[in-house]
Amino acid sequence: MCYLLSMIVVKVGGSAGIDYDAVCADLAALWKAGQPVILVHGGSGETNRVAEALGHPPKFVTSPSGYTSRFTDRQTLEIFEMVYCGKMNKGLVERLQRLGVNAVGLSGLDGRIFEGRHKDSVRAVENGKVKVLRGDHTGTVERVNVDLVRLLLGAGYLPVLTPPAASYEGVAINVDGDRAAAALAVALRADALLLLSNVPGLLRAYPDESSLIPEIPADDVESYLEFAQDRMKKKVLGAAEAVAGGVRRVIFGDARAGAPISAALGGAGTVVR
Amino acid sequence: MCYLLSMIVVKVGGSAGIDYDAVCADLAALWKAGQPVILVHGGSGETNRVAEALGHPPKFVTSPSGYTSRFTDRQTLEIFEMVYCGKMNKGLVERLQRLGVNAVGLSGLDGRIFEGRHKDSVRAVENGKVKVLRGDHTGTVERVNVDLVRLLLGAGYLPVLTPPAASYEGVAINVDGDRAAAALAVALRADALLLLSNVPGLLRAYPDESSLIPEIPADDVESYLEFAQDRMKKKVLGAAEAVAGGVRRVIFGDARAGAPISAALGGAGTVVR
Repeated sequence: MCYLLSMIVVKVGGSAGIDYDAVCADLAALWKAGQPVILVHGGSGETNRVAEALGHPPKFVTSPSGYTSRFTDRQTLEIFEMVYCGKMNKGLVERLQRLGVNAVGLSGLDGRIFEGRHKDSVRAVENGKVKVLRGDHTGTVERVNVDLVRLLLGAGYLPVLTPPAASYEGVAINVDGDRAAAALAVALRADALLLLSNVPGLLRAYPDESSLIPEIPADDVESYLEFAQDRMKKKVLGAAEAVAGGVRRVIFGDARAGAPISAALGGAGTVVR
Repeated sequence: MCYLLSMIVVKVGGSAGIDYDAVCADLAALWKAGQPVILVHGGSGETNRVAEALGHPPKFVTSPSGYTSRFTDRQTLEIFEMVYCGKMNKGLVERLQRLGVNAVGLSGLDGRIFEGRHKDSVRAVENGKVKVLRGDHTGTVERVNVDLVRLLLGAGYLPVLTPPAASYEGVAINVDGDRAAAALAVALRADALLLLSNVPGLLRAYPDESSLIPEIPADDVESYLEFAQDRMKKKVLGAAEAVAGGVRRVIFGDARAGAPISAALGGAGTVVR
């Protein structure tokens, strides 16, 4: 089928400043022009706000290798699902439906689209010491069950996907959305993976936006990890996994205004190829 | 296809006391025995709790004809989506996945499964006077787009459906879950519709559980409205709509313990036929 040749996976983050109306308008125009697209989204910023408001503030841990992630106890997981699968996912589906796109929103639990191993404990650096924290509901996407995604695309529905994923035992686990999108792009043999957030791309001297790195050679992605701050690290890691898995282009693009998807496809942002 | 002959639609409410583990265990056993089922759920009680916790307490209005409904401004709609589509829907999907059932959770917005007219204003009785309140995001399901539901069932997925619905313009609208389930049962020509809640069935003298009405003749459902309190009124209305639409049996059953679906199918509760 032709969508296997030209599929685009668009991941839009969950940080402050992202213009979801602009993303959806651009997406709808591309979709109506016949471009097969899957949207994957985050919801981190809003999850933090709701968790604070509900009296269960977010807790972030830093691994010994320097990656920051959300510690996801059961109560946090439920708040995470409320925001990612409820407010964010249905908000995006509603925007697309209003634009005449027959969108269908699903989490990685649904049809086990995203599957991985449940990591119950996490090693975290606290006050210079490495501690082991238990009761975590996290993991990494190891399998993408593309049957359901293909079924929906084939019937004319635009899939809008979000964490959590399912563990092999069927338990909900918090997974990184960028790396989930990368795994999806590989599994679908997508032509391009767009990782859109609230910065113009990878910056050599964050937060100086004039220091944008326009291109990264595909065989040298990991050496650019040194320029990545915080959440951008996982995007660079996701990009490395996607190009290693056969995705032709990964683009770090700006979702704050304009036509974010068209701009990224047209060469704006940081292109990995 | 044979599932058109023997389809069962199970609606489980969102009030205190419902045992979702028991509902899912029973559902999984039936599904694995080959019984085609669709689950529809509510989330009213939990929505009230989360709305209170977020400082936007629920507001209920009573229509001049005596029906109580949630006044759904935009902020309430987002809380509603967080609870119904996030916490409740993914909690049920997770339970089923853990039991080995490949469930897929969707709202009425997704693929516009449930569609209806957006009612922006509602007539409400306050202090004995009828007022018109604007800014409401509610409606009634007028169309069920069964294509997506059939696509999922045909591919072996168990659909888990929830309000909100989509307006004809694609806007999210709060709709009554019991009547949505009734419309779905009619559209699928279901053999049975089960409306499970935290009471044994329709009671002649609520809350006296020994006053259970075991059977209601299908041609006389509306005359039993006098026995229905609050939310039970919409269940009786949904039952009337379902039997008028050709559903053979509607059962008001108890979801607080045991094997709620098997018990209802076996004759417990109030049967409308």
